[in-house]
Amino acid sequence: MNYAIIIKVLGSLLLFEAIALLPPLAISFFTGGNDLKAFIYTIVLLIIVGFPTTKVSIKHKRVKARDALLIVTLGWIFVSFFGSLPFVFSRSIPSLVDAFFETVSGLTTTGATLINNIEVLPKGIIFWRSFMHWIGGMGILVLTIAILPAIGVGGYQIFKLESPGPIADKLVPRMKDTAKILYTLYIGLTILQTILLCFGGMSFFESLIHTFGTVGTGGFSSKNSSIGAYNSSYITYVISIFMIISGVNFPLYYEIYKGRWKSAIQNSELKLYLSIIAVSTLLITLNLYGKAYSSIFETFKHALFQVSSIITTTGYSTVDFDKWTGFSKSILFFLMFVGGSAGSTGGGIKVVRLLIMGKLVKREISKLLHPRAFIPIKLNGKIVSSDVVVSITSFFFLYMVIFAVGTLLISLEGIDFISSTSAVAATLGNIGPGFSMVGPTQNFSFFSPLSKIVFSLLMLFGRLELFAVFLFFVPEFWKNN
Amino acid sequence: MNYAIIIKVLGSLLLFEAIALLPPLAISFFTGGNDLKAFIYTIVLLIIVGFPTTKVSIKHKRVKARDALLIVTLGWIFVSFFGSLPFVFSRSIPSLVDAFFETVSGLTTTGATLINNIEVLPKGIIFWRSFMHWIGGMGILVLTIAILPAIGVGGYQIFKLESPGPIADKLVPRMKDTAKILYTLYIGLTILQTILLCFGGMSFFESLIHTFGTVGTGGFSSKNSSIGAYNSSYITYVISIFMIISGVNFPLYYEIYKGRWKSAIQNSELKLYLSIIAVSTLLITLNLYGKAYSSIFETFKHALFQVSSIITTTGYSTVDFDKWTGFSKSILFFLMFVGGSAGSTGGGIKVVRLLIMGKLVKREISKLLHPRAFIPIKLNGKIVSSDVVVSITSFFFLYMVIFAVGTLLISLEGIDFISSTSAVAATLGNIGPGFSMVGPTQNFSFFSPLSKIVFSLLMLFGRLELFAVFLFFVPEFWKNN
Repeated sequence: MNYAIIIKVLGSLLLFEAIALLPPLAISFFTGGNDLKAFIYTIVLLIIVGFPTTKVSIKHKRVKARDALLIVTLGWIFVSFFGSLPFVFSRSIPSLVDAFFETVSGLTTTGATLINNIEVLPKGIIFWRSFMHWIGGMGILVLTIAILPAIGVGGYQIFKLESPGPIADKLVPRMKDTAKILYTLYIGLTILQTILLCFGGMSFFESLIHTFGTVGTGGFSSKNSSIGAYNSSYITYVISIFMIISGVNFPLYYEIYKGRWKSAIQNSELKLYLSIIAVSTLLITLNLYGKAYSSIFETFKHALFQVSSIITTTGYSTVDFDKWTGFSKSILFFLMFVGGSAGSTGGGIKVVRLLIMGKLVKREISKLLHPRAFIPIKLNGKIVSSDVVVSITSFFFLYMVIFAVGTLLISLEGIDFISSTSAVAATLGNIGPGFSMVGPTQNFSFFSPLSKIVFSLLMLFGRLELFAVFLFFVPEFWKNN
Repeated sequence: MNYAIIIKVLGSLLLFEAIALLPPLAISFFTGGNDLKAFIYTIVLLIIVGFPTTKVSIKHKRVKARDALLIVTLGWIFVSFFGSLPFVFSRSIPSLVDAFFETVSGLTTTGATLINNIEVLPKGIIFWRSFMHWIGGMGILVLTIAILPAIGVGGYQIFKLESPGPIADKLVPRMKDTAKILYTLYIGLTILQTILLCFGGMSFFESLIHTFGTVGTGGFSSKNSSIGAYNSSYITYVISIFMIISGVNFPLYYEIYKGRWKSAIQNSELKLYLSIIAVSTLLITLNLYGKAYSSIFETFKHALFQVSSIITTTGYSTVDFDKWTGFSKSILFFLMFVGGSAGSTGGGIKVVRLLIMGKLVKREISKLLHPRAFIPIKLNGKIVSSDVVVSITSFFFLYMVIFAVGTLLISLEGIDFISSTSAVAATLGNIGPGFSMVGPTQNFSFFSPLSKIVFSLLMLFGRLELFAVFLFFVPEFWKNN
């Protein structure tokens, strides 16, 4: 292993986190919150730990896959650990395990919370909690792609691992440029949504909080009853649309920017993603109209919002969807597994994986008629290599196994089946709320510390797309240093 | 299509069913049951429909894949339809939809019932219901492999489709011999278990009923409280062991018979199958000891029985496992998806498929370290072709999709989540009972006729391993006659 580089990159991450803590520090200062010292202590700690690593000298610049994987996983764990300190120091979340859960939930853009009353917390803490969504949204390590090359790490392996989804379309050959384009898009979306929410009567602070939660597909709110607190159709539709936008494969926006409209609109994953949203919204609207809501427009609005929120793995809510019918809840439950598009900030299995597996099934059926035919799997006109196909199907299987094992561990709490399964699906898929005891009006505070650690791991598994984390259990990983 | 052959084979199946109705007819005659006429009418109808097909002359003997697939699917549907008539005629199950459900459940060796009080039914009907497990256990069409060649059908495609599991190891090159070996084994097991149950104080009639349900991995009982009615440790262990035996890949018994002990015992699927049973039993025993049962032996006995019953997709019960803890129930729930071994009478996904997908995941993790390495997937020392691997992963995905769609359809009944998911998992996996409203002390009678048709389809999908049934929705299947 190239320990010098590993230590240097991890150190840079911590220094970057110190910088990320300046905005909440400023808010705390100007609002006179009692959380000011918590931020100062954390920043000082980060500098004490991070600064010495800048003095480490790098002997050789070669970074192997195992180094990159170690950086990614340790990076998430370290940043989550230090990110949880403001919660502990300010006594907003006194227990370290709880604070770690909340921080992992923030950075992995899950949005599962264990805070009973968010509205009483200091402004700086509320901001930091949501700002982590924004940072984590593009992936701390995708953001640091611009830093890594500067210290000489050829970080393609990290980009491959870090960018959500199986197919990392190279926007432009050089990674630094890629990162810049993604930043620009991401910041552009953030500014646009913040302005639109301000127009809807939300304060600037709350507009920022909910924009962070939307573009990062996170779901932390500054209100206990999430978006339902605003009771505004305008805000509901703005957030619905921005959730859907944030669940789209980002490289497609670059295609559109470059004038390649046609190829963007004809993208198979985009079509399937929008179709799933449309069909699910329609089915729920038809199912709930006249039952849960008397107006068809009201029914449609809440159906669209909740469907967009779950499929993009954001986790915001405008109503207590746990009170919906079994049919509508089952649709939301299965959407938890679908997730956003590849190359978006969304979690879950991802639409493109389901699309390719659907094509596999179609091919298997054709093969019954033509046993000897060779039928390649194509995506947007290009043949998908059998390596990618096998990697996708393995991912799906591993996802289901982790879901089952997670459910078993959580079921030891003695809670009902829908609570345990949906809590696991919601954390593994980086969504946030589930059903019943972890429904949108509930939270994760009642779980044992052990279960909270399991949930934290599930959120990391989901965000890192599972395989990377498992590598640490392979003896070979630790050999041949 | 070769319609002449299709009609001839379907006709033979119906005549075969008429013969299969003779034992229940005889029982009805000797017990003086009021179901005698029901059997006579059905047999007469089968002869009227079936006999004319023996006169159809076959122009050419070539059977294409599409002919074979049509025979298999229509065969199951026709035999199920006529098999349900004795229930309707005897007024044991007056509704045709209900009787069809019960018959499909019998023939697919599912064992899901909608009869509230089995014990009041005439003996002939009870026998027929369980005898269908025995016939269906090896697959009506596997049994008819001896008939098909006689009328000149080179039925390998059917065998390939029909024999449960992805890898149809040819026992001996010629199919007729294969069928004979399987018969011998199956009948041998049946005789042995019947004798052992008689020793335990069960009447000969009930021994037969429960043997049919065990070796066919079906689960229909003559008692309302299933095996729990006997309250006998001896009977519990005998049935546990025979369920486990029936869930093993049958060709392995031939290996043992031929003296190839070592290769049989070292079979990877067998080892995993037995390990899953051992670990699940252990976990449930530890979880329930002192809670549900005060004696460790009692806990172990019921844990082993229920684990064996669910993994082999039999569905018998000695206790109301729906009252177990969430942890123990979750283990059983996930075992519903595991299923028996390939080449057994069990349903579900099958152990060998999970084994191969587990190997895929392991390989993907290794590939992170060695991106360019070529690592073949091996099973029992032989390389598994990538065609088989893709077929297995597609099957798994399709299984999950059908599970989700089935759950959505059933959730329209307005029942709770564990009832709808477990009812779908239990029918798709050919198990029988699920949890909550379809738990071991409940039945499927309260569902709407539409849901009962959905369940019947799910049982057929599961038994025919999904792909075959879908072929009918492919327009190409109906082209180029």
